[in-house]
Amino acid sequence: MTTVEDIFRECDVYTDLALEASERVRARTGREIPGVSVQEFPRDGIKVTRVIIEDEDGAAIMGKAPGTYVTIEAPELRSRSRELAERLSGVIAQELAQMARLPPDATVLVVGLGNWRATPDALGPRVVEQVLVTRHLREMVPPELKGRMRPLCAIAPGVLGVTGIETGEVIRGVVERVKPDLVVAVDSLAARSLDRIMTTVQLADTGIQPGSGVGNRRLSVDRQSVGVPVIGLGCPTVVYALTIAMEAIGRLSQQLPQAAGLRQYLQGLDARGKEDVLAGVLRPLTGEMVVTPKEVDTDVEEMARIVAGAINAAFHPGITEAEVARYLR
Amino acid sequence: MTTVEDIFRECDVYTDLALEASERVRARTGREIPGVSVQEFPRDGIKVTRVIIEDEDGAAIMGKAPGTYVTIEAPELRSRSRELAERLSGVIAQELAQMARLPPDATVLVVGLGNWRATPDALGPRVVEQVLVTRHLREMVPPELKGRMRPLCAIAPGVLGVTGIETGEVIRGVVERVKPDLVVAVDSLAARSLDRIMTTVQLADTGIQPGSGVGNRRLSVDRQSVGVPVIGLGCPTVVYALTIAMEAIGRLSQQLPQAAGLRQYLQGLDARGKEDVLAGVLRPLTGEMVVTPKEVDTDVEEMARIVAGAINAAFHPGITEAEVARYLR
Amino acid sequence: MTTVEDIFRECDVYTDLALEASERVRARTGREIPGVSVQEFPRDGIKVTRVIIEDEDGAAIMGKAPGTYVTIEAPELRSRSRELAERLSGVIAQELAQMARLPPDATVLVVGLGNWRATPDALGPRVVEQVLVTRHLREMVPPELKGRMRPLCAIAPGVLGVTGIETGEVIRGVVERVKPDLVVAVDSLAARSLDRIMTTVQLADTGIQPGSGVGNRRLSVDRQSVGVPVIGLGCPTVVYALTIAMEAIGRLSQQLPQAAGLRQYLQGLDARGKEDVLAGVLRPLTGEMVVTPKEVDTDVEEMARIVAGAINAAFHPGITEAEVARYLR
Amino acid sequence: MTTVEDIFRECDVYTDLALEASERVRARTGREIPGVSVQEFPRDGIKVTRVIIEDEDGAAIMGKAPGTYVTIEAPELRSRSRELAERLSGVIAQELAQMARLPPDATVLVVGLGNWRATPDALGPRVVEQVLVTRHLREMVPPELKGRMRPLCAIAPGVLGVTGIETGEVIRGVVERVKPDLVVAVDSLAARSLDRIMTTVQLADTGIQPGSGVGNRRLSVDRQSVGVPVIGLGCPTVVYALTIAMEAIGRLSQQLPQAAGLRQYLQGLDARGKEDVLAGVLRPLTGEMVVTPKEVDTDVEEMARIVAGAINAAFHPGITEAEVARYLR
Repeated sequence: MTTVEDIFRECDVYTDLALEASERVRARTGREIPGVSVQEFPRDGIKVTRVIIEDEDGAAIMGKAPGTYVTIEAPELRSRSRELAERLSGVIAQELAQMARLPPDATVLVVGLGNWRATPDALGPRVVEQVLVTRHLREMVPPELKGRMRPLCAIAPGVLGVTGIETGEVIRGVVERVKPDLVVAVDSLAARSLDRIMTTVQLADTGIQPGSGVGNRRLSVDRQSVGVPVIGLGCPTVVYALTIAMEAIGRLSQQLPQAAGLRQYLQGLDARGKEDVLAGVLRPLTGEMVVTPKEVDTDVEEMARIVAGAINAAFHPGITEAEVARYLR
Repeated sequence: MTTVEDIFRECDVYTDLALEASERVRARTGREIPGVSVQEFPRDGIKVTRVIIEDEDGAAIMGKAPGTYVTIEAPELRSRSRELAERLSGVIAQELAQMARLPPDATVLVVGLGNWRATPDALGPRVVEQVLVTRHLREMVPPELKGRMRPLCAIAPGVLGVTGIETGEVIRGVVERVKPDLVVAVDSLAARSLDRIMTTVQLADTGIQPGSGVGNRRLSVDRQSVGVPVIGLGCPTVVYALTIAMEAIGRLSQQLPQAAGLRQYLQGLDARGKEDVLAGVLRPLTGEMVVTPKEVDTDVEEMARIVAGAINAAFHPGITEAEVARYLR
Repeated sequence: MTTVEDIFRECDVYTDLALEASERVRARTGREIPGVSVQEFPRDGIKVTRVIIEDEDGAAIMGKAPGTYVTIEAPELRSRSRELAERLSGVIAQELAQMARLPPDATVLVVGLGNWRATPDALGPRVVEQVLVTRHLREMVPPELKGRMRPLCAIAPGVLGVTGIETGEVIRGVVERVKPDLVVAVDSLAARSLDRIMTTVQLADTGIQPGSGVGNRRLSVDRQSVGVPVIGLGCPTVVYALTIAMEAIGRLSQQLPQAAGLRQYLQGLDARGKEDVLAGVLRPLTGEMVVTPKEVDTDVEEMARIVAGAINAAFHPGITEAEVARYLR
Repeated sequence: MTTVEDIFRECDVYTDLALEASERVRARTGREIPGVSVQEFPRDGIKVTRVIIEDEDGAAIMGKAPGTYVTIEAPELRSRSRELAERLSGVIAQELAQMARLPPDATVLVVGLGNWRATPDALGPRVVEQVLVTRHLREMVPPELKGRMRPLCAIAPGVLGVTGIETGEVIRGVVERVKPDLVVAVDSLAARSLDRIMTTVQLADTGIQPGSGVGNRRLSVDRQSVGVPVIGLGCPTVVYALTIAMEAIGRLSQQLPQAAGLRQYLQGLDARGKEDVLAGVLRPLTGEMVVTPKEVDTDVEEMARIVAGAINAAFHPGITEAEVARYLR
């Protein structure tokens, strides 16, 4: 039997978060997903969930590539607690270091995806601005820091500085020259739940897949396309307007007994039919419109600081924040 | 008899546009609104609507102050046609000049409301950047321009340059010193319809009222508060997320026969009851979240160019765009 | 007898620093300046000099208004030592608090003079961005901070947000409304010595006088013009190109015996004659050209951080940097 | 016999302009330079000079690589005449097209050298922002434009988007992928004469050589290093402070009979001796200090507009400015 939740899956209420994809499949079927394991690790008041898509069956159900997805959530971050922001940054750093498993002198290339001039899509470039780039200055740093610095470089191919050249071309060109041991690709994501906007980070050892991100990237940045391991590090900055509209209908038809007729009607349609009905009704609500906080500029800036801090802590573990500020700015 | 449209009014699906308020009241009652006249003047492929709220009765029904509201719509603007942008700018200029009815040497103060660093709220400051400010340079300009330039000055009190001082205090302080004959207050608005985001401009001879704007301004900028006539010039840059959710439910329950039960149930509730039901169901969708185009930065920039061009043409009618570029940048 | 040093004074090798003016007069005359006292207070490796112009005689010789000028110099700052920057900020804070002598709840208005879009003249607006503005949020702050926060507000009238209105008008309009107990006017200065660019701060209880600053302000911001005490806080960001040219000639003719002919010739001219000779020779080197570091953007940013930190420490002494970051950003 | 002009050459009063190098050599020797031809072509009130360094002898004397250097000067530009700016842009376009001699569908890569965040060094990145980039959108443009657009792409490797990776590596990586037929490398230059700051453009078919530019680039961008022809397009934005100091001394000792002793002394020294004397005297005036207009931000912006307009006109000759604005922004 189909439930109204199908509507969302089949109408492609898109989410970049594996955690949200698993939540929806489990809500629909009421049981575990074959080929997918989900484990929660509450840590320091922050919710860490590890979703492992073990095989192609799980991948097909989830609509995501096989691999490990770690979601780190701090819903209270909206209250702008500085202390929570630092704690979140620390947890991201731990999970990132664990997923990367790099020897101390391996080279890291941070790729900030997204459009510098479209604020909801600007997380990647903003992070690149703040990571501690060291590859070029190894001989210039004070001797007491030298042993503790890993070579790290960064590129944000969607910044105004690179235009008319496909992002993928630029990344591959730079990877070929720099030959990093790991790429960390930072991106703005689309989620399904408003609660996760600007409060959640996902790490994925599958890199970045086509169709993901706020910008609906057409490129893949993964081991296969660039030739070295890639960790995708994303934060939801928007929910699609269509998602909100469908959520509203879903909630209402599930919670109000008086909406039983609507619920039954929607359940009686096949996937294609539902899509047609809802798209017909909601068409003016679709398009490129996104839901985001009014203070999107400030929120993206704050999340960029958290993520850049985590990258710095994960890859330059011997250097304190104070040293970063003192020697290297 | 109440229709489902009541839900929206009573649940306060907010709009800053008098046109949208009148559309909704008329949809509900099926007839003209007492104390309110609405006239359309299609012009040059652009839809101009004049809503006049004639008395306090009309004001109460509409939830807007008595006065004249001119809405200028170019829904095709989303296609980024440069030619349409110029046409729209021209129509705004005509309507603005007509509403202002100023002698040629009267002084104009443009006030750009909004937060420079919150892109969806940044229209006002961006317009201030681009208006042709002349009050300070009357003796510096080439003699051939002099007779054709009206004194115009501008302030954007939400720009970083002024902090810790209430916007209203700054505006009143400057008005007292400059003693303009007219204030034009430019603001980012919230609409009900996504189609009007970044495609529509409203002129109002009532100025800016508390509670309006993306930033939910707490100040009034009108004849009473600043002592000179004020024209409010706004453009919708967002729709509240709650509006989208309610719109989705409204559309569905009106268009699907299968949603009759829902429709009847909602109609059977009184206003308070409906508000409780819908707020209960949709609570997670509310808050400070707004719907806006992904390319909000570019769209605000483009609309700022259109509005600034219109202000320049309305108040410096003898100066061509080419002269602006040539002599005065 | 006249020495070659006269050239500089009489040819108006301009400096905004009272310390440099006194150095030059003393170099010329070889003795103390009547009506002017100069005291040095080395502190924490930083050179603090207090120049007091006691009467109108001293003022005429010095070309500065009577009052107290405190110069704080950290020539090693060019090496970008973070630790020195913090120490300098602390010394500025102490001197500023001492010059201000304000009761704990007196209101301060920080005025950032200068042009936001001309980097060498942008110190004032950049400082305004970073001072801890509290006047508007006294009821919003955590109770544990409340008793420790003084009302402070800030304005940068040369930022894009205010155009077509004279800076002086805006300042007076805001002072009338805000009624501060003290104005601190921050400005970019012109010095005579390159060593002082971006390494030195001058505090003056005489405020800002016409003709000073990189922008060659035409306004005065002092007790007389705004009605409350004004502290001028300036940092040299440029040396005029003409100054460099004259310095070069001065050094050469003093240090090389072979330049004795030149030295004697210059000494034999009266002031007017010297001015004509040197202006004739160096004319192509004059104009609006300034000498500044290539990295002027970074240097202005760094000095803005130092000065804003000093203002925060001087006027909110009970609040730590960590608290500023945690609660108030 | 040596003249005082030697001082400047031997003390390395640096200029990036071949024209200035030739002026100085000719002033010194009083005759034509072997292996170097200099021709002037006044055009439209703008001075165009073609300096051809024909062989290695000429190159050694001039301190520049063999090749063709076209200097285009509009000293009146400082008056901010819009009309002159357009005329200058047109002349640059003609000279650039003539030096490039490209078939209509050949691909051009514009490389904007320099540091985006150091205003005097930011010309390259600012030009990249404004060139009409077409390589990626050939299928998206209106059919009526298609035949008239050449594939053009652009990169500004010193923009924040690329860090920790050497500029040369990035350029070579991109050239290998894009395989352009021509690279145009835009850079901020250092001149000797203040009159040429922000008023002059140099085109060189030798590309960019190490040691040139405001940033004192360590990289070469020329046919040999990147594998395709490179045109260097530079504009002086600064004069080194040391140059001004030496110019001042040079002028004085040449023009004043009373400076004969100084002149003779300087002439009697060998190059090394002169360098020691002058460096000793002028040391405090050297360093990384540059002379630039106070309004460096505005001037760089204006020159970027002129240069980008010239690049657009040279490489997309069939597309009018109006079309650029209408279709392609």
